[in-house]
Amino acid sequence: MPEETHQLLEGIKMANARKVVEVFYDVVSPYSWLGFEVLCRYRNVWNIELKLRPALLGGVMHGSGNRPPGLVPNKFLYMGKDLHRLAQYFQVPLNPPANPAEAMFEKGTLAAMRFLSAVEMREVDGDKQLERMSRELWMRIWSLDKDITQPGSISEAAMKAGISAGETEELLKLSTSKLIKDKLKNSTQEALDHGAFGLPLVVCHINGKAEVFFGSDRFELIAHCIGEKWVGPKPTIAKL
Amino acid sequence: MPEETHQLLEGIKMANARKVVEVFYDVVSPYSWLGFEVLCRYRNVWNIELKLRPALLGGVMHGSGNRPPGLVPNKFLYMGKDLHRLAQYFQVPLNPPANPAEAMFEKGTLAAMRFLSAVEMREVDGDKQLERMSRELWMRIWSLDKDITQPGSISEAAMKAGISAGETEELLKLSTSKLIKDKLKNSTQEALDHGAFGLPLVVCHINGKAEVFFGSDRFELIAHCIGEKWVGPKPTIAKL
Repeated sequence: MPEETHQLLEGIKMANARKVVEVFYDVVSPYSWLGFEVLCRYRNVWNIELKLRPALLGGVMHGSGNRPPGLVPNKFLYMGKDLHRLAQYFQVPLNPPANPAEAMFEKGTLAAMRFLSAVEMREVDGDKQLERMSRELWMRIWSLDKDITQPGSISEAAMKAGISAGETEELLKLSTSKLIKDKLKNSTQEALDHGAFGLPLVVCHINGKAEVFFGSDRFELIAHCIGEKWVGPKPTIAKL
Repeated sequence: MPEETHQLLEGIKMANARKVVEVFYDVVSPYSWLGFEVLCRYRNVWNIELKLRPALLGGVMHGSGNRPPGLVPNKFLYMGKDLHRLAQYFQVPLNPPANPAEAMFEKGTLAAMRFLSAVEMREVDGDKQLERMSRELWMRIWSLDKDITQPGSISEAAMKAGISAGETEELLKLSTSKLIKDKLKNSTQEALDHGAFGLPLVVCHINGKAEVFFGSDRFELIAHCIGEKWVGPKPTIAKL
């Protein structure tokens, strides 16, 4: 094959290759839920390979020297309104817990995120379990105001996510292993290495370069960067 | 006229009435520039009455107990990339000053914002001068890395904005009056009363209620709230 033809074919191959898009998230974060759902909807609309990356928001905040936005009273009040409007517009059943500080900071999501890391590690074929389990945990903490710190709570979510009782028991055990603790730590560090100071963090791999986006309000720009089209938060409806 | 017909006509009148959209901004803020340009483009596309509201970012930060986002190193680095990408996508000739901390915090924009308040007060027919003057000040600080603190610098910008030398002299004098100092203070307080913790702040008046949006990344949601359509940051091109 002549060199020029080879280069042309390589070029076409590269242009058609599915771009890898990673999303680092923590179920403690409602903005992460919005970003997660939108990307899960677009994974079948855009030519992307979506990688779900559980990470720890607390570790990202600590590692970057950032502090929770809710500490500024006006920002806290605004976030409540902003999330309410976004949830309606994005059609995500988000509903803040009665005591957000207790749910987010006192109870936290360490056990839940370690469980998700275990699911991530054990999954062999795609990430269907990880997607469903993440959603069920968000449903508990950010929609139904239910606990996600106790093994019993995690098991309930796992059952709804279609994970068998036996598997759940194994995953709970695996969650407390050094292997999984390190896996979650490493993912969190990877987010920090990409420049994270909060979550969600969306990392688009384009021609060997990582384009990093923070938050759930850059989808129009993300689409532009990866050569796709943004048609709002409900792409399947927009496509009909 | 029967009561029902009257109510129907009133309903049609309300639906057709131009919604008032205010944008509070400070030329120290590059995100404010992006928001300002987008809203100035949409004022002729959406059925809105846009009100340009010069305010002081320093006063908003102080009044809300917020602190500059750039103090977190990862956030500072991210903002640089984010602004670069947004500026290209929004087609605003944004270019950071060589020493952002000096331009933004040491030199600041107090004199420039007082001048804009004077322009706002003196303008009788619309806000063409205020729009042009604001843009010329942004061009200096956030595109050409030029001073905007000295009277000579402000005069140069005013000349480009089409304000005569005589008028400029009067406006400079007016800028230092208690009247104008209070006007800028009051606008800043108004932004704080709307819940501001930063700028730009977009306030949409819908059926007697103020819907408040922070930043330059909620246009899709703003459009949804006022019953208009978002077609990206370049609506006139999209309309052709």
